[in-house]
Amino acid sequence: MNKRIAEIPPSLIRSLNALKKPEDIDFGIGEPTIAPDLSAFEAALEWTRANGSPYSPNAGFLELRRLIAGYLSPPAAAPGDAFSTDNVCVTVGSEEALYLAIKSLIDPAADEVLIVEPCYLAYAKICVLEGIAHRMAPLDAGDGFLPRASVILEAIRPNTRLVLLNSPCNPTGRVWPAGELEALCVGLAALPGPPVYILADDVYRELYYGDTPPPSVSEIYPNTLIAGSLSKSNALTGLRLGWLCGPAEVIAAATKVHQFVNTSATTFSQRVAMELFGREGGLKSQRQHYMEMRSVLLEAARRGGIELIEPEGAFYALIRLPGKYANNSMEAAELILRECHVVTVPGLAFGGSGEGWLRISWVLPEEQLEEGISRIGRWLDENR
Amino acid sequence: MNKRIAEIPPSLIRSLNALKKPEDIDFGIGEPTIAPDLSAFEAALEWTRANGSPYSPNAGFLELRRLIAGYLSPPAAAPGDAFSTDNVCVTVGSEEALYLAIKSLIDPAADEVLIVEPCYLAYAKICVLEGIAHRMAPLDAGDGFLPRASVILEAIRPNTRLVLLNSPCNPTGRVWPAGELEALCVGLAALPGPPVYILADDVYRELYYGDTPPPSVSEIYPNTLIAGSLSKSNALTGLRLGWLCGPAEVIAAATKVHQFVNTSATTFSQRVAMELFGREGGLKSQRQHYMEMRSVLLEAARRGGIELIEPEGAFYALIRLPGKYANNSMEAAELILRECHVVTVPGLAFGGSGEGWLRISWVLPEEQLEEGISRIGRWLDENR
Repeated sequence: MNKRIAEIPPSLIRSLNALKKPEDIDFGIGEPTIAPDLSAFEAALEWTRANGSPYSPNAGFLELRRLIAGYLSPPAAAPGDAFSTDNVCVTVGSEEALYLAIKSLIDPAADEVLIVEPCYLAYAKICVLEGIAHRMAPLDAGDGFLPRASVILEAIRPNTRLVLLNSPCNPTGRVWPAGELEALCVGLAALPGPPVYILADDVYRELYYGDTPPPSVSEIYPNTLIAGSLSKSNALTGLRLGWLCGPAEVIAAATKVHQFVNTSATTFSQRVAMELFGREGGLKSQRQHYMEMRSVLLEAARRGGIELIEPEGAFYALIRLPGKYANNSMEAAELILRECHVVTVPGLAFGGSGEGWLRISWVLPEEQLEEGISRIGRWLDENR
Repeated sequence: MNKRIAEIPPSLIRSLNALKKPEDIDFGIGEPTIAPDLSAFEAALEWTRANGSPYSPNAGFLELRRLIAGYLSPPAAAPGDAFSTDNVCVTVGSEEALYLAIKSLIDPAADEVLIVEPCYLAYAKICVLEGIAHRMAPLDAGDGFLPRASVILEAIRPNTRLVLLNSPCNPTGRVWPAGELEALCVGLAALPGPPVYILADDVYRELYYGDTPPPSVSEIYPNTLIAGSLSKSNALTGLRLGWLCGPAEVIAAATKVHQFVNTSATTFSQRVAMELFGREGGLKSQRQHYMEMRSVLLEAARRGGIELIEPEGAFYALIRLPGKYANNSMEAAELILRECHVVTVPGLAFGGSGEGWLRISWVLPEEQLEEGISRIGRWLDENR
């Protein structure tokens, strides 16, 4: 057996989920609960009636790659600065995009990956699986995990070849401010040696709550890879339709890996995606829903006296635990589950820097959201 | 960059495909051209209307795993001998099943993979990508690539941990006879040291032309992994729905890899599969079509005086080239394409043992099949 598989740490989220009962209020799952737009499925079925279910090219249908390239290109890009189909590989969700990017870019014998924390720990687990060295660059809990270029630039070593960012961020809900992102890119570009790539996990790109979309690192830094998907923006986690976008030579290598990992993404899913990308605002249609749910969350948290980091994007929020759980978010999550019948995720599940916090995923129906937040507020009050 | 990706040899099939024109008769592509049954798609859409497009569990919906376990279990298996859901991981096509099996079972630092040749060379390319040692065990062209246990047993070394078989076989169309399969299993079981696993690429399982289904290695040898899919049996290559079946501890490791590679197979594709597996004979519905096409092929080949290996399964046939092309099947394929406007695949694309042969994929409409075979026959006559 491949020993590296046994070295992948077990999932804390999963061990909590095993204790969950059907009647519990579930803030644990990172999956939209609203319904997707079915008309894109009808269109895909119509296409299947005429064309069957053939393979697509390994990198995906050319027309879909063209649509994704257009979507990710800067609005006013000069022709040479816009992405083309050569810059896009259609993947089985953004998980595969992350896997392909790390596997294609990194030489396991020489390079290391730097991961901004707290984060979705699959980034680190992919590195373990691939025998790739990785280190964490933790943001500061003291200022609510505000993204800071200096944290990354100070952690870089000569063999760091890839920095992994997630903005909007799971679990913090933070968005990288334009100034910090620019400082990061300027700093990386000034380093001697081969380029340091940024892998931007952009899966929450469309779920932002400021007036303008989150700044995009690919617009200011050429050595950027973007991993994205329709899972969160369009409530289509089960579609398994994502993309990796970046420099053509990296995409060519990633497509070769993709071919031997799973050939191509599902043809039907690609047709659903072509329908959504072909519509004006097709990826923004559910943003308003999350804006409204966020208001419900913030009002409920205010009523409950809960200290949380107000999400700037994504559909998560971090709640600060009382001092006595500062080093044991797992115990707090277990107690809240047992005593209040509310599922949360211990901050530790997102790396050591998340310890002392709880993550909630606020994608529940309004009454459940309010009731769950109220129960958490009471528990926190009683356990200070 | 990961240097192993550049070490993967380029595809001969692809370089020929680049020369192809739309009006050519295409025996190159390994993809059914008949239409799939759309009623399973209608049923999946109905389910999506009610349930949206949520994630499935990583290993696939439990009900689908139960159906696949039942399908692969021996007809009269005692309860302890039948597969259960723990023995099945639903994958993104059989390509991912092969990838997961090789990656999960093999320790790249110590083990090697033995591959029966001629074969689909992706088996070897996965090994190159993963930094895993592999060797080829070539069957004998002199007896038409008849599968023989002795070829494998003589090639085994102490660090061989996995033997890769494909029956019915791409490109030979051969089926492993029950006696040879049994001799192989007896021989492997008698070896000292840790077990040698068999990875059975079963993707052509339902396309057999004898009176009984091909013998199944999993019924006689416990250390068997089965990779399969709906791609070929049901003309659903674009569905990307496959499975890996085997001992529970291997499937648990493979599911962990699957989680970090692409999370899970597309939910819609799994619902299509559940519909097909739930029907009596749902995976056998297109077999009759291939039986009829095979008769057309054999009659056309007889008329054209073509020497080919009569396929016992799958939808390929190997044609022997004249002596002067015994060491240059690539040139023969290029000449046939240029002079006759017929796409074939040089046998070399399936390993050195395939040199001197041409593979045809006989999935075309009847008139095209007859016309294409007739042109190949004339070319062979003129080039002896």
